[in-house]
Amino acid sequence: MTTIKLTVAYDGTDFSGWQAQSGARTVQTELETALARVHGHPVGVTGSGRTDSGVHARGQVAHFATDLERMPADRFVPALNSLLPKDVRVVSSERAPDGFHARFDAFSRTYRYFITPSRVQFPEERLYRWRINRRPDLGALNRAAAFLLGEHDFTTFANPNDASRTRCRYVHAASFRAEGDGLFFEITANAFLWRMVRSTVGTLIEFEAAGSPPERLRDALAARDRTLAGVTAPAHGLFLWKVDYYSAGAPEKAPDPT
Amino acid sequence: MTTIKLTVAYDGTDFSGWQAQSGARTVQTELETALARVHGHPVGVTGSGRTDSGVHARGQVAHFATDLERMPADRFVPALNSLLPKDVRVVSSERAPDGFHARFDAFSRTYRYFITPSRVQFPEERLYRWRINRRPDLGALNRAAAFLLGEHDFTTFANPNDASRTRCRYVHAASFRAEGDGLFFEITANAFLWRMVRSTVGTLIEFEAAGSPPERLRDALAARDRTLAGVTAPAHGLFLWKVDYYSAGAPEKAPDPT
Repeated sequence: MTTIKLTVAYDGTDFSGWQAQSGARTVQTELETALARVHGHPVGVTGSGRTDSGVHARGQVAHFATDLERMPADRFVPALNSLLPKDVRVVSSERAPDGFHARFDAFSRTYRYFITPSRVQFPEERLYRWRINRRPDLGALNRAAAFLLGEHDFTTFANPNDASRTRCRYVHAASFRAEGDGLFFEITANAFLWRMVRSTVGTLIEFEAAGSPPERLRDALAARDRTLAGVTAPAHGLFLWKVDYYSAGAPEKAPDPT
Repeated sequence: MTTIKLTVAYDGTDFSGWQAQSGARTVQTELETALARVHGHPVGVTGSGRTDSGVHARGQVAHFATDLERMPADRFVPALNSLLPKDVRVVSSERAPDGFHARFDAFSRTYRYFITPSRVQFPEERLYRWRINRRPDLGALNRAAAFLLGEHDFTTFANPNDASRTRCRYVHAASFRAEGDGLFFEITANAFLWRMVRSTVGTLIEFEAAGSPPERLRDALAARDRTLAGVTAPAHGLFLWKVDYYSAGAPEKAPDPT
């Protein structure tokens, strides 16, 4: 068996998220349906993590094991795209090292959250950007976002139903940038709690609109108190942008003992 | 009665174009339905021109006459947007000079045609950009596009069923520009024949891909022969970007004799 690593993009609008659920249209199910047709038997696919209903992806990563040993790995791109619906595309496909796991081997995930500050939004952006009425001050947003860096317990920005073993996550980078008439928030962390990005961006925008000092975000985070968070931004502005992996010899990964 | 000038944006995906047709969902019909609700009686709306099924708009312009004399003109933006479906938005609304006509008074129309050169297209762009396999040479495209400037008989790029009185149009500007990973073609003319932009952009891309010299476009245009045109690019990459009007005192318009 050979392990294949796929990079997958999708328009989350008409999906009940990534993860297979009975009776729901999910990206994982669409990929598994296409893989079963290519292989002639069921093939399971494992993603780097779930994305919620309505959340998009530019660079979701997934792996599967194939018995089509003689098929060049990059041929899975056209083979799967010819079978997949138009709102899911396999962007690239490559042979992965033995034992590669899309979730466990991920070093970090990067999300982007797109925002249009305007009273009226162009209709073709309505499913991909959150419209807010006022143009925020990028400098103020970034002074607050800087308090997210490093390791923190993100209970304040966690869904109360989150079942994670620990709510500590390590944020490598977090900042807002201007882009055209709008802006986006980009955040990279080792992993994220359920709805953590949407809660964080909604809170940052709400605190800035209220004229709060950046320290309000620091204090809300330190309090580990969900009631101190602001609104949860809607799903449709969020894109899973990329997933980075430990490469052989990367200092962050302990050497393999075998 | 007061004349109101609206600027309207729409996602053409689910519309049978601008123009009202019985049994079809059109932008004009949606606007007239919303205007009738605001006024309590039927109100007709006139656009700067038709757009085809699947073609989008950022800056379509339309006018209507209102008997709501005391309503501030800019109040039509929130009033109409609260009634319109999400794929049509009124971007601005202003009082127009007496006798203003969205079609007859237009000095020029500008269209943009968006292209993604990539084997795989991100799904959220699939309804708004034409995907082509190869990255074209912008310089070669622009050398050919320069032959469109000025007044020409555009029979080569006209639909054979076009019923226009004359097929001469005046092109003010026409060029390709890079934008992110993609490119767009922007063309401004006094007016356009039916499907002229899509035929022109498809032909430019096809000739460039074939390695033809720019003069091939000049010769095809001069021949006024539809069989010399290339493919017609699909509707979904096209946006009616803006419509410019004669302003009072503009040298292009003859002074009003009254």
